[in-house]
Amino acid sequence: MIGVGILGAANIANKNILGITLADNVQVVAVGSRDKAKAEAQLERCGLAGAVAAYGSYDEVVGDPRVDAVYITLPAALHLPWVRKAAAAGKHVLVEKPVAVDGVELDAMLAACADAGVQLMDGTMWSHSPRTERMAAILRDPAAVGELKAVTSAFTFYGKQIAAGAGDFLKNDVRVKKDCDPLGALGDLGWYCVRGILWAYGFEAPTSVTAHAGAAFNEEGVPLHIGATLLFSGGRRGHFECGFDRALTQSLEVAGTLGTIQLNDFVIPRSVKQSSFVVTGEHGLRDCDTWDATRRDEVVVHLAKPQEVCMWERFGGLVQHIQSGGQPDAFWPRITELTQRVLFAVERSAREGCREVRLSL
Amino acid sequence: MIGVGILGAANIANKNILGITLADNVQVVAVGSRDKAKAEAQLERCGLAGAVAAYGSYDEVVGDPRVDAVYITLPAALHLPWVRKAAAAGKHVLVEKPVAVDGVELDAMLAACADAGVQLMDGTMWSHSPRTERMAAILRDPAAVGELKAVTSAFTFYGKQIAAGAGDFLKNDVRVKKDCDPLGALGDLGWYCVRGILWAYGFEAPTSVTAHAGAAFNEEGVPLHIGATLLFSGGRRGHFECGFDRALTQSLEVAGTLGTIQLNDFVIPRSVKQSSFVVTGEHGLRDCDTWDATRRDEVVVHLAKPQEVCMWERFGGLVQHIQSGGQPDAFWPRITELTQRVLFAVERSAREGCREVRLSL
Repeated sequence: MIGVGILGAANIANKNILGITLADNVQVVAVGSRDKAKAEAQLERCGLAGAVAAYGSYDEVVGDPRVDAVYITLPAALHLPWVRKAAAAGKHVLVEKPVAVDGVELDAMLAACADAGVQLMDGTMWSHSPRTERMAAILRDPAAVGELKAVTSAFTFYGKQIAAGAGDFLKNDVRVKKDCDPLGALGDLGWYCVRGILWAYGFEAPTSVTAHAGAAFNEEGVPLHIGATLLFSGGRRGHFECGFDRALTQSLEVAGTLGTIQLNDFVIPRSVKQSSFVVTGEHGLRDCDTWDATRRDEVVVHLAKPQEVCMWERFGGLVQHIQSGGQPDAFWPRITELTQRVLFAVERSAREGCREVRLSL
Repeated sequence: MIGVGILGAANIANKNILGITLADNVQVVAVGSRDKAKAEAQLERCGLAGAVAAYGSYDEVVGDPRVDAVYITLPAALHLPWVRKAAAAGKHVLVEKPVAVDGVELDAMLAACADAGVQLMDGTMWSHSPRTERMAAILRDPAAVGELKAVTSAFTFYGKQIAAGAGDFLKNDVRVKKDCDPLGALGDLGWYCVRGILWAYGFEAPTSVTAHAGAAFNEEGVPLHIGATLLFSGGRRGHFECGFDRALTQSLEVAGTLGTIQLNDFVIPRSVKQSSFVVTGEHGLRDCDTWDATRRDEVVVHLAKPQEVCMWERFGGLVQHIQSGGQPDAFWPRITELTQRVLFAVERSAREGCREVRLSL
């Protein structure tokens, strides 16, 4: 069993503690917060009080010899020092998204993990869902949706709703604070949209990114809602919109010449037992038709385990592989880097009048 | 019964001849084509051979005293002379979209109809669906989707599919020919997306339009795929993408602070008997939740008559109102004008490096 130490007591940690607990090859061995009482309260909430070490510092977690890997839930602006310390201590790293606040910090984290030979992975759960694998298989079938042309994604929620009982989200949440998560909605929500677009195109890098008009920033300059078009070779496109300004949507559509894949719960599935998506097929719609009989097949995927458990089992397996003499899997830090660099380009385009930002990745 | 004369033998006319036939207050009295045999063939296809006059010219249709109104199915570049002739002859006009190829022609058509006191309406069928009225009622309810923030629409189909047996759509179809429909996919498909966005915002004019990166034009300079963001007062947005480059999609999402309305068959419904849309509601999704239990209610609207019949009955009623001494309804030419001017602005933005085009409408 791989021992995981958790840095921080963010809400997302609750979900991951459950995910780790349900996974076959990992276990929580320590939780650290700057306030020991918070760490203890979190273990209490998860039914692990007494069974797992509660620390009043992150250093103690990193230093615990039972900790093989750390899970960093801290705001993005605090990631770098703890990724560095963890890597230096030979600990593998699963870090929440967004991973970095700028390119310099991203490079430093990637280098720290590569130099130390530890696995780096970001906390994008849907990447690990069996549904995602099923969709990928369909995209690989040239007779299904055909040649890909456009991927469209949106992830939004209304900040004030989330904040019920917690004050004004748009003023107080860590995700709109420049010194915590300066990418705001782009880092918190756009991360998934960009990852979805990149995933559909097999993690090919876009050639350029152009923000859509109308992005909004708060007084601290943090993006509250923002969108962009990503251009890929051969005229293929990705379009996304994200924001804290409107009701929950979480959609992904991959459109090819022959059909599409569509789902409206791509980040957080509507059920933990099974997930579905729709595959639309070739149509014969003519101008004179009064209804659209395009084929729409719902594909239902049974989920033996929730996607967060799948993520932790995959991460645990990579760590076990390294402990047995193998090398870190370069795929995961590569897609972390690509996702993050596209986000930086989107932010830059939006701040610079929606100009086209060329990428060389 | 209002007598309708049809100019042109486009495919869309078949659907509208059926629509007129099923409507209570209008009837087809003449069909004209430059080739009389084509007009006869069309009446044959619709089971109206012998019962309706077939003419070998458009002038004969306009000149037929039984014709109260003309339905113009011709390519956009041919609209102006026939709108003018019809209006001058005191005939009311239902004209296919896109209505005009540039602002000068648009102004001339609007002026011709206004000066003659005849009704002008474009052929956007979904505007007249009972489903659209039901959605509008929900949007007017402040407790439903809340304050509107973003409207997102897409309408696409793959040109080659449509063209099965008719050569290469992207080379031969009237909708990609500069001298017929120079707005290409923008006029044919984007028309509906823009209309949808404007409809959701109560036909308020946007303050500016900015094309998305990546628009494609054919060798004649006609848009094959294109998209844009429309900005409205108070930071509200509209986003759309349209194109002949990928499989059929026809989606409209209206997102507010409390919820959304979503449908994926907004132009051509999936059934002629009933249509539906989804209303999503407030969610309580927290970071630690492993599934998304947001309310999604499907609203099913019974359709007593197909939307094209509703359109013709509404148009017929407007004409009867004028024949009884009333005035033309200014709403319909106003939304035609607004839709068309936004399209011109999108085209201009795309041709001029995706610069923001300000509107004063």
